[in-house]
Amino acid sequence: MTIEKGDLLYTGKAKMMYQTTDPDVLWVDYLDQATALNGKRKVAIDQKGLLNNRISSLIFKDLAQHGIANHFIDQLSEHVQLVRRVNMIPLETVVRNAASGSFERKFNVPHLTSFATPVMEFFYKSDDLDDPFINDSQITALKIATPEVLAEMRRQALLVNDRLQTIFNEMTIELVDFKIEFGLTSTGHVLLADEISPDSCRLVDKKTKKSLDKDVFRHDLGDLTTVYQEVLNRLTAVEGSQA
Amino acid sequence: MTIEKGDLLYTGKAKMMYQTTDPDVLWVDYLDQATALNGKRKVAIDQKGLLNNRISSLIFKDLAQHGIANHFIDQLSEHVQLVRRVNMIPLETVVRNAASGSFERKFNVPHLTSFATPVMEFFYKSDDLDDPFINDSQITALKIATPEVLAEMRRQALLVNDRLQTIFNEMTIELVDFKIEFGLTSTGHVLLADEISPDSCRLVDKKTKKSLDKDVFRHDLGDLTTVYQEVLNRLTAVEGSQA
Ligand SMILES: Nc1ncnc2c1ncn2[C@@H]1O[C@H](COP(=O)(O)OP(=O)(O)OP(=O)(O)O)[C@@H](O)[C@H]1O
Ligand SMILES: Nc1ncnc2c1ncn2[C@@H]1O[C@H](COP(=O)(O)OP(=O)(O)OP(=O)(O)O)[C@@H](O)[C@H]1O
Ligand SMILES: [Mg+2]
Ligand SMILES: [Mg+2]
Repeated sequence: MTIEKGDLLYTGKAKMMYQTTDPDVLWVDYLDQATALNGKRKVAIDQKGLLNNRISSLIFKDLAQHGIANHFIDQLSEHVQLVRRVNMIPLETVVRNAASGSFERKFNVPHLTSFATPVMEFFYKSDDLDDPFINDSQITALKIATPEVLAEMRRQALLVNDRLQTIFNEMTIELVDFKIEFGLTSTGHVLLADEISPDSCRLVDKKTKKSLDKDVFRHDLGDLTTVYQEVLNRLTAVEGSQA
Repeated sequence: MTIEKGDLLYTGKAKMMYQTTDPDVLWVDYLDQATALNGKRKVAIDQKGLLNNRISSLIFKDLAQHGIANHFIDQLSEHVQLVRRVNMIPLETVVRNAASGSFERKFNVPHLTSFATPVMEFFYKSDDLDDPFINDSQITALKIATPEVLAEMRRQALLVNDRLQTIFNEMTIELVDFKIEFGLTSTGHVLLADEISPDSCRLVDKKTKKSLDKDVFRHDLGDLTTVYQEVLNRLTAVEGSQA
């Protein structure tokens, strides 16, 4: 049975999610647009969808090969990916290897101060509440996730961090921080979902110290397509050599 | 050897801390003033120091009797207390039994929604940074406290909550939330310090549903002295009957 595209389920800032003929499978369309300031600024960007689809597919495939199960099933075309449908846990899990962004601002520490052990933060995904920073006991009290689910998210997030650091290291890139999202399968298992791309990672070229991520767009540092293409090229070189 | 008052160590918003002839003992002078908005609003309030000194002394004595060691040594006079000097851990530990204040605003939940298990939050005491909400991994990364110290603070905070709930319950008062501070003794033990008073607790009369705490001052709900006196009266009735 081939899987066919069904009804639109959700239009996000970076992707459109469609149902398919298989209730457990979603059709993800990566959009050629970038947004900042929680969607208030939106710009069409040539090839961005294609690049993120390719990058995320390669990373998710690599993670699966390294024992970190995730929602990725297959890349169907330039902009399309099939993924396993899960019930998203409305938390953004942020892992930081060095200070940047909100951490740097909040605690006034020098940019890129590195941490002896990774910092992990949860943000409650709620447009109404403006995605507040949240701690474990608040998450439990608000019944967003159980302590067991949180522990499993933490465990997997650290494994993802370890593997990503290895990959990016081979690409001469420093993984400063990244954001991932998890969902629950129908059997209640925590499964890595959404995407891992330069949209959701903070990446710095180890030699030039230049940003190789969405900060290029956020802070108008240059052409996003060129930068994402560079990330894809290096990733393909690394992942290609494994096959 | 009697202990004598020495040099001024610190002038806070609610108390002045003096050294004494014993390097391990501090002389705490409870001030007759109240502040709000991080000190931006300051008002002289008759008897406030006396009331908080008395209330905090009674509570700390009760906690010690119930196995929760703390810095309290003795109440010397109306405004003065002797306490054991510790190295303060720059964290405010907040325990919540029901939603109020920043929690209610941040997560938009109904006022006084009660939690199945207490919510615990840490805030980093830093005037420059405006006392930011902080999680365990940030605390560890910034070397503010070790995971072991945090675990011990959590353990003690829950014991304090249990005992305070019992005391206030007998006083027909609901303990909505409270803030405590811990320090490290010279031997590295976590010791409950600072104060526990209507300045640092959110208290609601179970019958009238009226605030019996500093919210009276913050929101101009009436005369603070009358309210604190009422808390002291009920506390004396409860603690007196134990002696
Ligand atoms: N395997 C999956 N099953 C179900 N939903 C998923 C899966 N993977 C990702 N999603 C969800 O699909 C949406 C992806 O779209 P996109 O990333 O563009 O959203 P967004 O604009 O970031 O908005 P938000 O993440 O706040 O909903 C997200 O809501 C994401 O949580
Ligand atoms: N046993 C103790 N040893 C040393 N310091 C203590 C002890 N107990 C309390 N303190 C500190 O003494 C000060 C008490 O003063 P007060 O409560 O008026 O301060 P504050 O205005 O709340 O300011 P802040 O708590 O932000 O320093 C606080 O800084 C508190 O942390
Ligand atoms: Mg997204
Ligand atoms: Mg204080």
